[in-house]
Amino acid sequence: MTSSTVVTIAVDAMGGDHAPDVVLEGVAHAVVADPALRVLLVGPEEVVRPFTEAHERVEAVIATEVIGMEEHAAAAVRSKKDSSIVVGCRLVKDGEAQGFFSLGSTGATMTAATLVMGRIPGVLRPAIATVIPTTGAPCVLLDVGANADCKPEHLVQFAVMGAAYARTALGVESPRVALLNIGEEASKGSILAQEAYVQMAARVPGFIGNIEGRELPAGGADVVVTDGFTGNVALKLMEGMSRQLLGEFKRALTASVASKVAAAVLRPSLDGLRDKLDPDVHGAAPLLGVQGLALIGHGSSGARAVTSALRVGAVAVRGGLVQRVTDSLGSMGA
Amino acid sequence: MTSSTVVTIAVDAMGGDHAPDVVLEGVAHAVVADPALRVLLVGPEEVVRPFTEAHERVEAVIATEVIGMEEHAAAAVRSKKDSSIVVGCRLVKDGEAQGFFSLGSTGATMTAATLVMGRIPGVLRPAIATVIPTTGAPCVLLDVGANADCKPEHLVQFAVMGAAYARTALGVESPRVALLNIGEEASKGSILAQEAYVQMAARVPGFIGNIEGRELPAGGADVVVTDGFTGNVALKLMEGMSRQLLGEFKRALTASVASKVAAAVLRPSLDGLRDKLDPDVHGAAPLLGVQGLALIGHGSSGARAVTSALRVGAVAVRGGLVQRVTDSLGSMGA
Repeated sequence: MTSSTVVTIAVDAMGGDHAPDVVLEGVAHAVVADPALRVLLVGPEEVVRPFTEAHERVEAVIATEVIGMEEHAAAAVRSKKDSSIVVGCRLVKDGEAQGFFSLGSTGATMTAATLVMGRIPGVLRPAIATVIPTTGAPCVLLDVGANADCKPEHLVQFAVMGAAYARTALGVESPRVALLNIGEEASKGSILAQEAYVQMAARVPGFIGNIEGRELPAGGADVVVTDGFTGNVALKLMEGMSRQLLGEFKRALTASVASKVAAAVLRPSLDGLRDKLDPDVHGAAPLLGVQGLALIGHGSSGARAVTSALRVGAVAVRGGLVQRVTDSLGSMGA
Repeated sequence: MTSSTVVTIAVDAMGGDHAPDVVLEGVAHAVVADPALRVLLVGPEEVVRPFTEAHERVEAVIATEVIGMEEHAAAAVRSKKDSSIVVGCRLVKDGEAQGFFSLGSTGATMTAATLVMGRIPGVLRPAIATVIPTTGAPCVLLDVGANADCKPEHLVQFAVMGAAYARTALGVESPRVALLNIGEEASKGSILAQEAYVQMAARVPGFIGNIEGRELPAGGADVVVTDGFTGNVALKLMEGMSRQLLGEFKRALTASVASKVAAAVLRPSLDGLRDKLDPDVHGAAPLLGVQGLALIGHGSSGARAVTSALRVGAVAVRGGLVQRVTDSLGSMGA
């Protein structure tokens, strides 16, 4: 598919800390930026109808319920059939949309996507993959939170699914795939990491061995595989470090009047750096392994992240992400 | 003990990537900085003898063997009884030194300290604790690599030992102890994290619940407890992020001639920031749970880190770290 192929993404109007405002603002920008993007805006009539009437290529799909961030994910998905998350996943299942995006409860979106869209045959555990900014080339990190406890064979599948995503999202034809570990040698690490290393070395194309935490921010691999506990800690730590260090840097810049003048001169360079490190640039993380595109965003996202997420979604659809994941797993005999 | 109490630390002259030069330089500065510090310099005669003759309060202890970074730790400790690491640990065991410091193989130092000094009665697993720089107050993180696979009861002991270290090293009388996890609620995380939460809530004084990766760099707790796999990934990731981000700042600052002029004005503030984030400020991490002070440094450390490590060691000895760990474990009935 080319960049002019029409792509339809269902969007949860009610997800996130600043819903629906930031969602609507982000959608408005996204459809202007991509004239071949169509959005099905899912939510209560009074929220979605006025917006869709005022914007081209945005259509309303009414969902009367909302799943809150604090609800038990599985129970909420089962009981709230008319929630924006469940309705959005059903639009993908029914072929009316090619992807679904929500800033709402990660657990509920994962559960609904898995139950409603279904797993790709052979997939043991769907995993959340995110593109992390590095000072080198960006890199796909997974799992970043879907599976807190993993087995080695799960990590093997994450590797293959992550490589399919790196091809689609980053345009890397032969991704270098690494295992996040606490030493370079094959014998290092937890029992999980040691066994995953052996299986990945035997079965994962492009496997380059272990990568340590120190090398992650430098972009030492195109795909970095780990369990959902370690991956979630690592992702949030990187976000926290970026935020804290940029804050410290800003304080250092404004510590004196002379510094303030100097800071004004430096502002363009620093804005460029902030943009490079901004997790909003990628906007959303797909749940890989389900039969459809499910994109999960940060609850705290701003409108810019919503726009980015829809661009990421359109790239994934046009690049045939779900089919690539299916084919990759098939060719390794998953 | 007061800051004038004489403290004797055995130092491995042969450990690290730049041994013996950086070790000797660091020791020379340390004994000048602390007139009550005495060093037993352990290594081959031709290395240690000329140095000890030229420096006050530094005495030579000859060790004819060296354990390399790539050797199998347990095998090397067993076979090289006259290595600088084994000899240094024996000096502590025999009461000739109150602590041992090495930049050499972490595995060999851990193994030798555990075998030669012995565990504190009741300790299931010794753990490596490090002080991490944050933008708030510094914080003790453990385990950062001694135990890649842990059980909940290990984490409970890490918490109590880490709190004893925070009292000694950071002067925090009632440390706030948190569990590194992937959500705030008790029900979040891996099976290990969930079970550790329950046990820590019941048994660890000062337990404040879970902390996420995002809050770690802001200093949200005085002690952060995790398994040695996650802790090692997190520590190295923080080091890598600091290094990469400071490098990017520097590039941003020197991107144009105007920036270069501005950067000169800003240099003092930036140097302050670099110093604040510099892991060398703390220099070494103790192996908690053994009957003696064993301090482990980065193989890549410079002389400044060696000096810091000896200051950290003297503080630990004068603060009665080993006795505090013993008492804390005893009072919780370990």
